Amino acid sequence: MTKNIINFSAGPAMLPHEVLQQAQEEMLDWHGSGLSVMEMSHRGKEFTSIAVEAEETLREIADIPESYKVLFLQGGASAQFALVPLNLAGDNDLTDYIHTGHWSIKAINEAKRLCEVNIVASTEDTGFTTVPDQEELQLDPDAAYLHYTPNETIAGVEFPYIPDAGSVPVVADMSSCILSKPLDISRFGLIYAGAQKNIGSAGLTLVIVRESLLGMASSKTPSMANYDVLAKAQSMYNTPPTYGIYIAGLVFQWIIKQGGLSAIEARNIKKASKLYECIDESGFYSNPVQKHCRSRMNVPFTLADPELDSLFLQQAEMAGMIALKGHRSVGGMRASIYNAMPEESIDTLISFMQEFEKQNG
Amino acid sequence: MTKNIINFSAGPAMLPHEVLQQAQEEMLDWHGSGLSVMEMSHRGKEFTSIAVEAEETLREIADIPESYKVLFLQGGASAQFALVPLNLAGDNDLTDYIHTGHWSIKAINEAKRLCEVNIVASTEDTGFTTVPDQEELQLDPDAAYLHYTPNETIAGVEFPYIPDAGSVPVVADMSSCILSKPLDISRFGLIYAGAQKNIGSAGLTLVIVRESLLGMASSKTPSMANYDVLAKAQSMYNTPPTYGIYIAGLVFQWIIKQGGLSAIEARNIKKASKLYECIDESGFYSNPVQKHCRSRMNVPFTLADPELDSLFLQQAEMAGMIALKGHRSVGGMRASIYNAMPEESIDTLISFMQEFEKQNG
Repeated sequence: MTKNIINFSAGPAMLPHEVLQQAQEEMLDWHGSGLSVMEMSHRGKEFTSIAVEAEETLREIADIPESYKVLFLQGGASAQFALVPLNLAGDNDLTDYIHTGHWSIKAINEAKRLCEVNIVASTEDTGFTTVPDQEELQLDPDAAYLHYTPNETIAGVEFPYIPDAGSVPVVADMSSCILSKPLDISRFGLIYAGAQKNIGSAGLTLVIVRESLLGMASSKTPSMANYDVLAKAQSMYNTPPTYGIYIAGLVFQWIIKQGGLSAIEARNIKKASKLYECIDESGFYSNPVQKHCRSRMNVPFTLADPELDSLFLQQAEMAGMIALKGHRSVGGMRASIYNAMPEESIDTLISFMQEFEKQNG
Repeated sequence: MTKNIINFSAGPAMLPHEVLQQAQEEMLDWHGSGLSVMEMSHRGKEFTSIAVEAEETLREIADIPESYKVLFLQGGASAQFALVPLNLAGDNDLTDYIHTGHWSIKAINEAKRLCEVNIVASTEDTGFTTVPDQEELQLDPDAAYLHYTPNETIAGVEFPYIPDAGSVPVVADMSSCILSKPLDISRFGLIYAGAQKNIGSAGLTLVIVRESLLGMASSKTPSMANYDVLAKAQSMYNTPPTYGIYIAGLVFQWIIKQGGLSAIEARNIKKASKLYECIDESGFYSNPVQKHCRSRMNVPFTLADPELDSLFLQQAEMAGMIALKGHRSVGGMRASIYNAMPEESIDTLISFMQEFEKQNG
C-alpha cells in the first residue's frame, strides 16, 4: 500500500498520478514494442512518434503559433540564463532586465558575463513583495530584449500582466508558471522553462522561440548553445533527454484530459484563493506579498511565532504533508501547488493549518 | 507478455532488464517514501541519498581516486566538446586532438570555435579503420591538453592503449566505452561520457575530472559551463537530471552484481570475439577494421552484396533483432553490444547470420 503523501515541493514537484501510473505500466514495454522508452534510439520510428506527438500536443494546448519553434533542451533555466544573451545579444549590446527576486538576479548575473545589462525596474527595496507596474519600467527602445521572471518561485510573486516592450522582444523565464493558464505566445520573443514543475521530470528544458530571432549567435557560440542549430535539428542535434520528453508528452495529454489550460487556470485560481484566504483570515499566518501579484503556484507564509516552525513542519509531515519548509532566504513555509496538486490536497492543508492555529495560536 | 526483443541500438541502448524492473516497481513509491523519484526535491534527504550512493558506487566500481571529482551533468558529449576547451584552454592556447572518425571530428570542430587545434594524428586516409600508434602522435609539450576518442561508435575502432602525453592532461570522450573494462583513471585529466550506452538513460552526462584542472575557466564562461562551479556545488548548482542519476545508480549496482568491471570486461571480450570470429570466418560478412583496434562495443559489418541489406534487416527484425542498420556514413550493419547485452543474444545473432548466409550467400 503506497503511503498517502501530499508533496508541496517547489521542484522537482509532484506529478499527476495517472502519468506516473502509465509510465510504470509502459516501463518494460512501450506500446507492444518490447522496448522501454529509455532504450529506444532517438532516431528510431518509436521515439520519433513520441517526440512528434509531445510537440504537437504542446502546440495544441498552449496554442503556439506556427512562427514559433519548440525546442526540448537540457540544462534547466540556469543554462538558458546564458543561452539567451549568447543568442539574442552581441558582446556590446544592451539588454533590459526586470529584477523581482532570486531567479531574476540569477539571470541578470549570468547575462552580465556576456553583454551589457540595464535593470529597468527592481523591487528589491520592497523585499520582493510586489512587481513593478508597466509604467515603472525604464525601457530602452534599442535593447536587444527585455527579460523578466513572470513567477518568482521563492518569494511567491507573479506578474498579473505581460510587459509591453514595443518592438523589443520579451523573454520570460516561465519555469514555475508555464502551462498554469492560457497565454498569448505572440506577445513573447522567447519563453523558457525547466520541466520539473508543470511539465515533467528534471533534466528537460522547454524553449519556445519566435523563428525570426534565430540565427544571430556569433560563430564562437558552441553548437549545443546555438538555438538556430538546435532548431534546425528539431531538438535532435544530439541525443535529447528522451525519457523526459516522453514524460512531458504524458503530462501534456493529461492537461487535455483536464480540459486544457482554461480549466487548469480555473482550478489553479480556486486552489490559490482558498489558501491565501485561509492565511489572510487567520491572525496566525501571514503572507507579505501584495494581493494583485500573489503567485498561484508558490504560496509562502510565515507563522506568528517562528519558534513554532519546526513543530509545524513535524506535525505536517506526520499528517503526510511534506516539503513545506520555506526557502532559507525568506524563512517560514512555502506550499508549491502546481497543476498536478488536487484541490482536495489544498483542503487538507487548510484544515491542518486551522487545527494547528487552534492548538498553538 | 512482453515481446522478446534484442536491441542492438548504438544509443540510447538496451538497459539491464533487472534495472528496468526495479525502476518499474519503484515508480510510484520509492522505498516507502510515497514518492516517485521524479517527484523528489533534489535537495531533500531521499534524493540526496540516491545521488550520494550513485557517486559512491561509481567510485567503487571504477576505482576513482579521491583527487578526482565526479560530476553528473547534462547535454551529452556534444556539450562537453565545448566545455572542455572553455575550461581547460584559453582563447589562444594550443590543444592537441587525435582524429579517428565521426565523433573525434565533432569534438575538433567545436574546439576550433574556442581555441587553437593541432591534429596530432589522423586515420582519415585509412577510412577510419585503425588508430594511430603512440609513436605516430605529433604531440606538443605545451598543449593545454590532448583529446581523443577511445571508441568510435560509428566505424567501430577502439584504442587498445591509453595515449601518453607526458605532463599534458589527457582528455577522453568515453561515451561508448565507459565502464566496459577496468581503467586507470589516474592516466587521465578528464573523462566524459553520455549516459545512454553503458550508464543509463539519455540526458545524463558523466564527467570525471582531476581536481587540479578546475578553476581555469575565464570569467565569461557561463556558470552552467564552468566545471569549477559545478564541482563546488556537487553537481547541484541547479536541479540535476534526478531520474537519470537514479537509473545510473541502479546500473552501477547491477555492475557490482555482475562481478565488477573485470567480470564485465571478460564478458565483453567473449561477446565481441565470437561476433568478429563469425564475421571473419565467413566469406559473406566483413569488417574492415584492423584486428588490434576493433571495438568491443560497436561491431560494424557489411554483406558481400549490399543489395541484400534490406532483406537482412527485415528478416532480423522478424526474428526480434532490431536496430542493426549501420550508420549511413559507413553503410551495412552495426551491432552495438554494450554491457547490458547478454552473451546469449550474441549467439542468437550469430545463428541468424549463419543461417542468412546459408540462404543467400
